[in-house]
Amino acid sequence: MAKRWSRVEEKSLFRAVEDLLRPKTIAIIGASDSSRGGWAQQIYDNLEHCGFPAKLYLVNPKRRELWGRPVYPDFAALPERIDLALTIIPTPAIPATLAEAAAAGLKCALIYAAQFGEGGDPEGVARAQAVQALCERYGMRVSGPNCMGVVALREKLLLYPAKRVRALPAGSVGVVFQSGGTFQYWLQQAAIRGLGFSYAISSGNELDLDLADYINFMVEDADTRMIACMVEGIRRPAAFMAAAAKALAAQKPILMVKVGRSDGGRAAVKSHTGAIAGDDQVFDAVCRKYGVVRCPSLDDLIETALAFSTGRLPHGPRIAMVGASGGGKGLFLDYASDEGAEMAVLGAATQARLRALIDAGVPAENPLDCGATIATNPRKFGEICKIVCADPNVDIAAVQGALPVNQGEPGDPVPFAELVASTKIPLLAYGRMAQNVSEISRKFQSAAGLPFLQGLPETVRALQGLIHYGAVRRRGIAPLRAPQGSAQNLAPAAFVARLADNGLIQPRSEAAHTPEEAAAKAEEIGFPVAVKIVSPAASHKTELGGVALQLADAAAVTAAASSMAARLAALDPTAPLDGFLVQEMVDGIELIAGVREDPLFGPFMAVGLGGVLVEVLKDVAIRLLPVDAATAREMLAALKGAALLDRFRGRAARDVAAAVRAIVGLSEIFIDHRPWLSDLEINPLIVRDEGQGVRAVDIRMIRRAS
Amino acid sequence: MAKRWSRVEEKSLFRAVEDLLRPKTIAIIGASDSSRGGWAQQIYDNLEHCGFPAKLYLVNPKRRELWGRPVYPDFAALPERIDLALTIIPTPAIPATLAEAAAAGLKCALIYAAQFGEGGDPEGVARAQAVQALCERYGMRVSGPNCMGVVALREKLLLYPAKRVRALPAGSVGVVFQSGGTFQYWLQQAAIRGLGFSYAISSGNELDLDLADYINFMVEDADTRMIACMVEGIRRPAAFMAAAAKALAAQKPILMVKVGRSDGGRAAVKSHTGAIAGDDQVFDAVCRKYGVVRCPSLDDLIETALAFSTGRLPHGPRIAMVGASGGGKGLFLDYASDEGAEMAVLGAATQARLRALIDAGVPAENPLDCGATIATNPRKFGEICKIVCADPNVDIAAVQGALPVNQGEPGDPVPFAELVASTKIPLLAYGRMAQNVSEISRKFQSAAGLPFLQGLPETVRALQGLIHYGAVRRRGIAPLRAPQGSAQNLAPAAFVARLADNGLIQPRSEAAHTPEEAAAKAEEIGFPVAVKIVSPAASHKTELGGVALQLADAAAVTAAASSMAARLAALDPTAPLDGFLVQEMVDGIELIAGVREDPLFGPFMAVGLGGVLVEVLKDVAIRLLPVDAATAREMLAALKGAALLDRFRGRAARDVAAAVRAIVGLSEIFIDHRPWLSDLEINPLIVRDEGQGVRAVDIRMIRRAS
Repeated sequence: MAKRWSRVEEKSLFRAVEDLLRPKTIAIIGASDSSRGGWAQQIYDNLEHCGFPAKLYLVNPKRRELWGRPVYPDFAALPERIDLALTIIPTPAIPATLAEAAAAGLKCALIYAAQFGEGGDPEGVARAQAVQALCERYGMRVSGPNCMGVVALREKLLLYPAKRVRALPAGSVGVVFQSGGTFQYWLQQAAIRGLGFSYAISSGNELDLDLADYINFMVEDADTRMIACMVEGIRRPAAFMAAAAKALAAQKPILMVKVGRSDGGRAAVKSHTGAIAGDDQVFDAVCRKYGVVRCPSLDDLIETALAFSTGRLPHGPRIAMVGASGGGKGLFLDYASDEGAEMAVLGAATQARLRALIDAGVPAENPLDCGATIATNPRKFGEICKIVCADPNVDIAAVQGALPVNQGEPGDPVPFAELVASTKIPLLAYGRMAQNVSEISRKFQSAAGLPFLQGLPETVRALQGLIHYGAVRRRGIAPLRAPQGSAQNLAPAAFVARLADNGLIQPRSEAAHTPEEAAAKAEEIGFPVAVKIVSPAASHKTELGGVALQLADAAAVTAAASSMAARLAALDPTAPLDGFLVQEMVDGIELIAGVREDPLFGPFMAVGLGGVLVEVLKDVAIRLLPVDAATAREMLAALKGAALLDRFRGRAARDVAAAVRAIVGLSEIFIDHRPWLSDLEINPLIVRDEGQGVRAVDIRMIRRAS
Repeated sequence: MAKRWSRVEEKSLFRAVEDLLRPKTIAIIGASDSSRGGWAQQIYDNLEHCGFPAKLYLVNPKRRELWGRPVYPDFAALPERIDLALTIIPTPAIPATLAEAAAAGLKCALIYAAQFGEGGDPEGVARAQAVQALCERYGMRVSGPNCMGVVALREKLLLYPAKRVRALPAGSVGVVFQSGGTFQYWLQQAAIRGLGFSYAISSGNELDLDLADYINFMVEDADTRMIACMVEGIRRPAAFMAAAAKALAAQKPILMVKVGRSDGGRAAVKSHTGAIAGDDQVFDAVCRKYGVVRCPSLDDLIETALAFSTGRLPHGPRIAMVGASGGGKGLFLDYASDEGAEMAVLGAATQARLRALIDAGVPAENPLDCGATIATNPRKFGEICKIVCADPNVDIAAVQGALPVNQGEPGDPVPFAELVASTKIPLLAYGRMAQNVSEISRKFQSAAGLPFLQGLPETVRALQGLIHYGAVRRRGIAPLRAPQGSAQNLAPAAFVARLADNGLIQPRSEAAHTPEEAAAKAEEIGFPVAVKIVSPAASHKTELGGVALQLADAAAVTAAASSMAARLAALDPTAPLDGFLVQEMVDGIELIAGVREDPLFGPFMAVGLGGVLVEVLKDVAIRLLPVDAATAREMLAALKGAALLDRFRGRAARDVAAAVRAIVGLSEIFIDHRPWLSDLEINPLIVRDEGQGVRAVDIRMIRRAS
């Protein structure tokens, strides 16, 4: 079960990362010019290149001197307490060496090596446990293992075994990747595109320090303005959610590529860093609640980071696009449709002003294709963009723009800069596809004052990322309140009454002993009714013809009940007949609404359209609790089969308001009864025509194992 | 209605493109150093740069001399007949000028200007009609209008108004884009990535010459080995399908970005080039049948073109991936799952050989993460790749590889080249994300002998493109046979018999006049049955309680029929009662299967799971006719709700074999009856449990308007 929300506030959720990223003293354990493919050498060279940002000690029992420095045989021999030790020794020796170092007061260790139980092998697991025990006993922190190290750009600390990290520019993006190899390619490409970094951490197995700690550190770091991560699994969900909430409050967006959406991906994650990828739909609900922006690919992570780099957020979802290509316009609309994006409708005044500037024959509408002649007239293009962005119906805009790459290529950043100055809405430039980017391009981008994204689908997704993040910022994070009342042993009848009070009304149902009594009960309930035979021998009611639906009058009820009884007697003359159940016949659309605890992220609700859609198509919307009315409405609208709730083929619309009330009620009830309830599902929850409410036909609840 | 297949063979389907792309004489109409933003100047400069690949004449009544050449006042004054005229004059003057030129024997005109009726404005439409009339009268060909011209690399013919096309390398990719602006960016980026071109055509509105003509030309061109296109609409569907069939036979893949998948995209297409984007699902069926590889984005079009550039095709769908990153492996599996890709399972012998080479602790499985130490050992990585590719369970492989960009960067192409030489399966290298590419990169790629793709999702899609294309090559294109028999006035009973012969059996149904007769008919049919009241006053059977289902014995039938009659009499004492319909009760899964004519591409079938899935989720599989058993099976498997046909929750599987027989039967019947039938739909086609066949409950047919 997930940690309770009351713990979110606890300081102890986050462990200190300072000694890893801002150490005053560093020791290289296993300093050697050949260890682990020369990693010690490469890291030493990087430290030297940066003028030794921390006091450096070398440790190796087999050496006396190296790189012109004294080498100490062990930690006990060092003249001062060490903030950070880099372990570049054979894996099996690491636990014992760290035990000695921890005893000598080591504050933090960075373990590069793998084989700490990733694949589940017993030796590796034992190793990890030994190191974890040191962390607990001494309060020592560990980064890694199974990682490629960390980089702190402002501190000039390049603890990564490759020269190429020296070229990374300092900037405002904090980076955490569980995959150390991918990390370096991403950083390099992001830098080429003009992004700079505060800290970049390859977090590996996260045996001790984890994503939540790193995010917390970066949120508190004044230089970090957004956090980009590639994540395999969330080690401490409550801490992660607390860190994400803190990041949202500080307006430092978290952008994330999550590995393990598929079964195969999840298995790969387990064997790679030993992380649990978890249920992807629930994780999606976590991201939705906390405003974590999920990116489908590493390339998207760059484009979206660029889009967020302006620091502006849209106040609504309406997108404008301005370009000089009809083909680009058509493609943009196709991708907007794929992503469910909303295109702004330009006002009449805007259209009139545009008509005077754009090519004859092209429509003055959004998305705007200005025509081929405007493509070679950047000033005029800039004026057109200004007019579009000044329209109050536009919340965010993307304007066509390619970066110059080589010296002497045409291009003028000024119209872009003027456009940016003319408006407060978020703005980005887009190219229709990937392109090379050089120093010249980066200077142009910088002078233009807006990011140049590459690729139309990526651009649309980045715009949507800004829009969704902006909406979560406005909406905030609804806290999960504590259970109320002492409902531990609520009697079934009281619980049913509580459900009904919360909009989860059960259909009327009466027992009858004879066909005639059944008809009388049916008159009380009102027609049409359903009649079911009640007999221990009649468990397969449908097959036996033991269920009659849509009975319209008393005669039909008597006939149906008599006929069932006769069939039962004919099939099995000894079968006892207990009587009949007469039920209000409820017509409508079947929903399934269920609440339960995710093992990682706590209570969540799943809502789906009943029957085939849920069972076969898994068409469900999932949100973390609490679910309020707006969220409930959003969940229903998100279903693929949502149209079934609307007016459909001349039929009345369904009672969506009652369904929303019932969904919110289910959320409230579960929150209060969580201490004894682990699962509460209404299946079906029948949504009748507008104004007729809902009926909770079957209620299934599972008590916690105590 | 689409053209008949018998016309496919007609030579007249394709118009000659030679005068456009291999002209011996060219005239620039409107030659001037300022016309249309200097386009004439720029094109002239390009021709000069290439040493004038054709004899050049300048035409302009206002000039005597230009660029040191004589200028002719009009076409009549030219000393010889002209193959190709470039019209760089104001749009309104074009029809009259071309009329004069056509009369003087002009063979082909290239019209750059827009406003030829794209948006539907009457003046533009009239202009287009005038030019089309010239084409018909004189047999003159026209390329464009609303385009940016053409480029023939081998002929050194750069009829594009920009210097940058001079840098395009010659090669084997033929290119046709309806969007002229997008075209130039795509060509430039594709060239940077190492692709070269035979011909590149911006086809614009396709007033005369169209995609089908260009594809036909490129299929016949020995230098062109694949065709990449960005398409808004298919002007002549029959000609396009014939060209696509010819391309498939010649093993020249057609790769395509199609604009207008969404409603918004379709509207943009209409106003951009006046093309009809058409029903995207039907177009998808066209691509599936003819092996046209659809690419979702312009970047994908490059990656997929690179993947096809090896010329190798896989013999099956099983993909292997070899890399040195656990994160990359997890992401690859996620994308493979998104695309429905099949990962190869490595044989035990392969696994044993791998275990000796890869890092300790990483599993010897596909996808293969070799471990971090292999990342810096290209020789060993190459050996590992060879072992994987030699496994008979592997049909196609992607191996990790990044291109060097700058002088002095490490990288060895030899292991890649040796890998390529060691196997016959298609091979490509992938990088996890986009990267810069330079001359050094292209040389490396060329020496390595395999393409380097960028981005994991794009790589998976390119692999799937090769796999699907390979499958269509093996399967071939089933021809649509001519209608058989003289079925013009087939009587209803005969048609029903024909349906039954083809597996489309209707449920047994008998009419009865009294409740007692209904019970007797039910005994004949066998229980359970359904009973429906028959009365002109009882059209809303369900609401009136005029339908009783699942009646299990004669008594229930009598009771239900009597009850219905009584209810009808009570509601409306004057209502006539015609009797009752007693029907075989058919339990099973509802399919909808329908055949009709697409206005562009001819007869196609749609199969969906009945009810909600079709109506709300549009969960249908669409294929062009004829549909054979393999295709029918593939259609059923492609449905999102396909699991409903399998064994499900302990229930028996459905009779899929009978459903397949019925679908194939429907295809056959429609082909024979197309001359008088425009639409034939079975809804529902109920698929009963295995061995119990199907029942065509409702058959709806629409006769052609004659």
